[in-house]
Amino acid sequence: MSAKALVGIDLVFAGELVSQYSSACDSGFAFIATHLFHPKSNVFSHPSIPDFSSIPSTRSDLVFQKDGKSIVRSIVGKVSANIDVDSTDSVIQASSELALQKELSWAVHLGLPAISLQLTRPNNIRLARLLTNFIRTEYNPVKLWITLPMWIEKNELPESTANDGDTPPSSKQSRSTVDDTPWHWWMRLSTLASDISDALGVVLEVPSNLPDESVIARWLSEPVVCLRLRTDLFLTNSKGFPVLPRSHQHLLRRFFKLNVQLLLVGACRHDQGFVCYQKYLMWLWKNQGEPDIYEQQSKGFEDQLQEPLQPLRDNLSSTTYSIFEMDPYKYDAYEKAIYLALVHRARKTSESALPNGPTPEVVGDKPTSVCQVIMVLGAGRGPLVNAALNASEKAACPVRIYVVEKNPNALFTLQDRMTHEWRGLDVHLVSGDMRQLNMPEKADIFVSELLGSFGDNELSPECLDGAQPYLKADGISIPSSYTSYVAPLQSLQFHNETKRSRDPTSCSRINSAHDTPFVVRLTNCQILSEPQPVFTFVHPKPDPRESNSRFATCTFLMEHDAVVHGLAGYFEATLFGDVTLSTHPRRHSPQMVSWFPFVFPVDHPIFVHSGERLTVSMWRAVSSRHVWYEWAFTEPRPTRIFNSAGHANKISL
Amino acid sequence: MSAKALVGIDLVFAGELVSQYSSACDSGFAFIATHLFHPKSNVFSHPSIPDFSSIPSTRSDLVFQKDGKSIVRSIVGKVSANIDVDSTDSVIQASSELALQKELSWAVHLGLPAISLQLTRPNNIRLARLLTNFIRTEYNPVKLWITLPMWIEKNELPESTANDGDTPPSSKQSRSTVDDTPWHWWMRLSTLASDISDALGVVLEVPSNLPDESVIARWLSEPVVCLRLRTDLFLTNSKGFPVLPRSHQHLLRRFFKLNVQLLLVGACRHDQGFVCYQKYLMWLWKNQGEPDIYEQQSKGFEDQLQEPLQPLRDNLSSTTYSIFEMDPYKYDAYEKAIYLALVHRARKTSESALPNGPTPEVVGDKPTSVCQVIMVLGAGRGPLVNAALNASEKAACPVRIYVVEKNPNALFTLQDRMTHEWRGLDVHLVSGDMRQLNMPEKADIFVSELLGSFGDNELSPECLDGAQPYLKADGISIPSSYTSYVAPLQSLQFHNETKRSRDPTSCSRINSAHDTPFVVRLTNCQILSEPQPVFTFVHPKPDPRESNSRFATCTFLMEHDAVVHGLAGYFEATLFGDVTLSTHPRRHSPQMVSWFPFVFPVDHPIFVHSGERLTVSMWRAVSSRHVWYEWAFTEPRPTRIFNSAGHANKISL
Repeated sequence: MSAKALVGIDLVFAGELVSQYSSACDSGFAFIATHLFHPKSNVFSHPSIPDFSSIPSTRSDLVFQKDGKSIVRSIVGKVSANIDVDSTDSVIQASSELALQKELSWAVHLGLPAISLQLTRPNNIRLARLLTNFIRTEYNPVKLWITLPMWIEKNELPESTANDGDTPPSSKQSRSTVDDTPWHWWMRLSTLASDISDALGVVLEVPSNLPDESVIARWLSEPVVCLRLRTDLFLTNSKGFPVLPRSHQHLLRRFFKLNVQLLLVGACRHDQGFVCYQKYLMWLWKNQGEPDIYEQQSKGFEDQLQEPLQPLRDNLSSTTYSIFEMDPYKYDAYEKAIYLALVHRARKTSESALPNGPTPEVVGDKPTSVCQVIMVLGAGRGPLVNAALNASEKAACPVRIYVVEKNPNALFTLQDRMTHEWRGLDVHLVSGDMRQLNMPEKADIFVSELLGSFGDNELSPECLDGAQPYLKADGISIPSSYTSYVAPLQSLQFHNETKRSRDPTSCSRINSAHDTPFVVRLTNCQILSEPQPVFTFVHPKPDPRESNSRFATCTFLMEHDAVVHGLAGYFEATLFGDVTLSTHPRRHSPQMVSWFPFVFPVDHPIFVHSGERLTVSMWRAVSSRHVWYEWAFTEPRPTRIFNSAGHANKISL
Repeated sequence: MSAKALVGIDLVFAGELVSQYSSACDSGFAFIATHLFHPKSNVFSHPSIPDFSSIPSTRSDLVFQKDGKSIVRSIVGKVSANIDVDSTDSVIQASSELALQKELSWAVHLGLPAISLQLTRPNNIRLARLLTNFIRTEYNPVKLWITLPMWIEKNELPESTANDGDTPPSSKQSRSTVDDTPWHWWMRLSTLASDISDALGVVLEVPSNLPDESVIARWLSEPVVCLRLRTDLFLTNSKGFPVLPRSHQHLLRRFFKLNVQLLLVGACRHDQGFVCYQKYLMWLWKNQGEPDIYEQQSKGFEDQLQEPLQPLRDNLSSTTYSIFEMDPYKYDAYEKAIYLALVHRARKTSESALPNGPTPEVVGDKPTSVCQVIMVLGAGRGPLVNAALNASEKAACPVRIYVVEKNPNALFTLQDRMTHEWRGLDVHLVSGDMRQLNMPEKADIFVSELLGSFGDNELSPECLDGAQPYLKADGISIPSSYTSYVAPLQSLQFHNETKRSRDPTSCSRINSAHDTPFVVRLTNCQILSEPQPVFTFVHPKPDPRESNSRFATCTFLMEHDAVVHGLAGYFEATLFGDVTLSTHPRRHSPQMVSWFPFVFPVDHPIFVHSGERLTVSMWRAVSSRHVWYEWAFTEPRPTRIFNSAGHANKISL
């Protein structure tokens, strides 16, 4: 969202549209929301509604001009509030249907970018159908802004829907009423209308009492496009200007990450006029605080599907290397791990040199200087070589470094560094695949950075197993182990992206997006439960004959009603000792930008109720030529097995 | 199923395969089921299992020859019973996986048509995955026969899974254990393995105590390919021959409709040898009773998707007319309805001729003979003209018949009948669309047969509305009204057919099979609840301005756990008075063969639990050029709206 389009103002219908618009512009607002038809003009042929036929229903399209320029792109059209297509009164229902069609049709005729509709009922099945039919048959693109309250306080609920407190939570009857929040209204509407989900956006009415974090987190996973802010939410600061309470400021900052717009609603309550609200909101937006490096690095990638890299099959590009090398955390961690490993090895070597075992007094902290053989496996352009050299210097431990790389393009760079940067040092370049090494000696320490977003998904286990014959029996691998994690994910945005990415021109890819894991900078999403460990690998492998295929089952107890669109995947690696790399959301390594989450999709959203168990089984399958993942849910209801036999996605060995 | 392949016999592994096979052939059996590997040969590397390495594991493929001809197509291979890939013991699990792969691979190498696997666990997730991977990567076609008990009697259940009697039925905890029948095992396995559902068949072990009807009905909706019959199920008749109890005979006859095969299991318990079982089962099969005319007419159409006819858009073919004209019930019903209408009209006319109203003594049963004008709207090749002529004669009421037809090809036939058959009668041919009539007079009676499998789906309402100006104010329409019905449908077979019918060569039809209603002779299916009325139309229409668009919501209370694959659609029409046409399963007009059920599919099976509500909303949408249906479920979980805006299927006006 550019600052230019951030704040709009909500107006009632007025004949003098252009002057209203001009005055809103003068106050700094970027857009206005206004009724399409006169609020009193929807003459329902119903006895209780008087005849307003004398009132002009709407303006001609000629008034949407200012200084000869059309202003329609700055107007959100509001559908009349008395339209109620899901009314149980059949007369209101039928007249509403006609009125809605008339207003929608008028809005697209004008070319408005968005039409706003207020949701007041829990169930909107007829509305869902009318909107779906409208968008499906409308040539002109238009967004539907579905406006609804962020939450309804318990005491605002009609008696019949309030929780009576002593109904057991497992009872179905109580569940459907107690848990019927505005989010449920939206969830049902958007599911019914999922054929047109690209056209739907949520407009949330921000209440003065903010709801629980769980409610806010839930909305952050939906396509919220705008927040409605009533002027009475604002306090007055010591200088007489409107300001939002701290909690609301914090709320806005969180929603700013979804690029929401803001819509000011209500009477002006400050002498300075509407302009002071607009200025305050702009100030809030500008003072969000600098994005951290992770946010900077992922700018533009939010919620986009990326095919996971396959560095074993494909040679990484120079750009890819340079992006990864910019990670401020990772190489420091490697350097520290190598240092600790050198210290550990050196101490051990000097100990074993003494016939009577360890004599700390003699050995001290500074180990004797036996040269350690380090193999950097998959050196890329050499960052780990430098980390090893630095560690060696710090540990005062001489090293011989074998630099192994199979990418011929990276080898040019390594050759250059050999000639200039590492000349005279005990560094040796080895060209080739680490699984087919032919080395003059064995290593004390393996150093590799072969981990993907899901840990083993770039085939680190297979690569390191292939090199393992060249590691001494008591040698160290950095990383020494890694574990992948999964957590249930709710993200309509992600789900829509996978639907979209079914390539319509290639029949062989039909549905395959639902069977393919992706790398995604998850933003517009909710992680529904604490991640659980899936697959663990340890290096060096205690029994080299052991298979790298894996099977794991995770069960998550759902705390809230939710819609599961897939599984978010993470990893944690122990480099050496207590030096770790982690993308686990609770323990993410600070400032580490190299990995976005892994995501396993499902073809169909899985509806889960609070208190239900969600169980998923996952496989890491290994054939002679490929590795792939399969996944299937068994609770609350079974699904098919995704990516069975790796039919949609395989990682090449 | 041809009689030739009906009965097989189950054998244990034997080295002398050909002699066993020969002896089975001599006893009249069409196929044998035998172990692929020696039952003691699966040497699991497990301490509790002794070493059987001296036992030959299986036979060479050279023994599958008899008289120089391969016998493999008559052999079902049985996977070793001790293979248990879902064991919680990781050693058994791993060895089982290897053993299973070895046995499956051996079976396809031999070219066996089917491999049989015994299901003993409620959850078979690893088995599901191995089978899916096997079928997905196997070039040779082979069927997997999943063998499991038809049901398990409560007292056979292990204590922990039995119903303790006082757990409330709504409790989720109890549900998952109480209701865990073999059908649930199959449902989970087949859902997980739905990528390969074409390859899966069910083999049911028939118990001596047959289960409730609900259990049998459930299995009749699954792809049952074979029944396993133990020899101890047979009684001995007075002549010393084996016979099945009546209940089992009845069961077999029901499953014969699914073309099941039979597999005899166990020791011979009769002096006459195995041959007498085979002969008895063949006798049962041959004495199923003649198929009724409905079954005869639908032979070959069972569970096949047919696109609904659009007689308004497309001219019906001669073959289609002749098939419909063969219906033994329909035209009799029309004749009776026309007769009653004539009697009614004539009486009314004569009554109104009398200044003082009805005087039964004077009028009597034989009405005075005022000529009645009948319009046969959409006469086709003229069967209703004959029905009207017959009714006129029976009622001794003269008629003038206008024969309206728009199909130019049918007009040739009508012209011919005019010249020869109806010469000299007061019958007049009118060529053209009944919605654009130009007639010299108005009709007393409209007679039409414009109903489709879902009643109004061939646009009878729109056609008759178009003709209505030519019906007298007090005129009669035959039919006078019709109502469509829907019921939730479980049919894996139907679901698989819709999956298959996504045309892979045409990208525009992706997924559309899930949005298209079909006409299907439903066989391998279960109707899960009593059908409920949906849309009703009455003719003549009281208010001609009233729209023919409709909206209805039906809620079904589920009595059993089930999987909903769509909605079965039916109709009931009142022709006149008490003369009806009905395809409602409980009130189907006898011998009426003209309509198979209508089916509305869903894209994804809907899992429902006993006691849950299934709610569906349905629309009949009308535009200036088309009519179409839309449908969406809202309980227990929302679905998308199918065929929104008629994007996949429209009926042309």
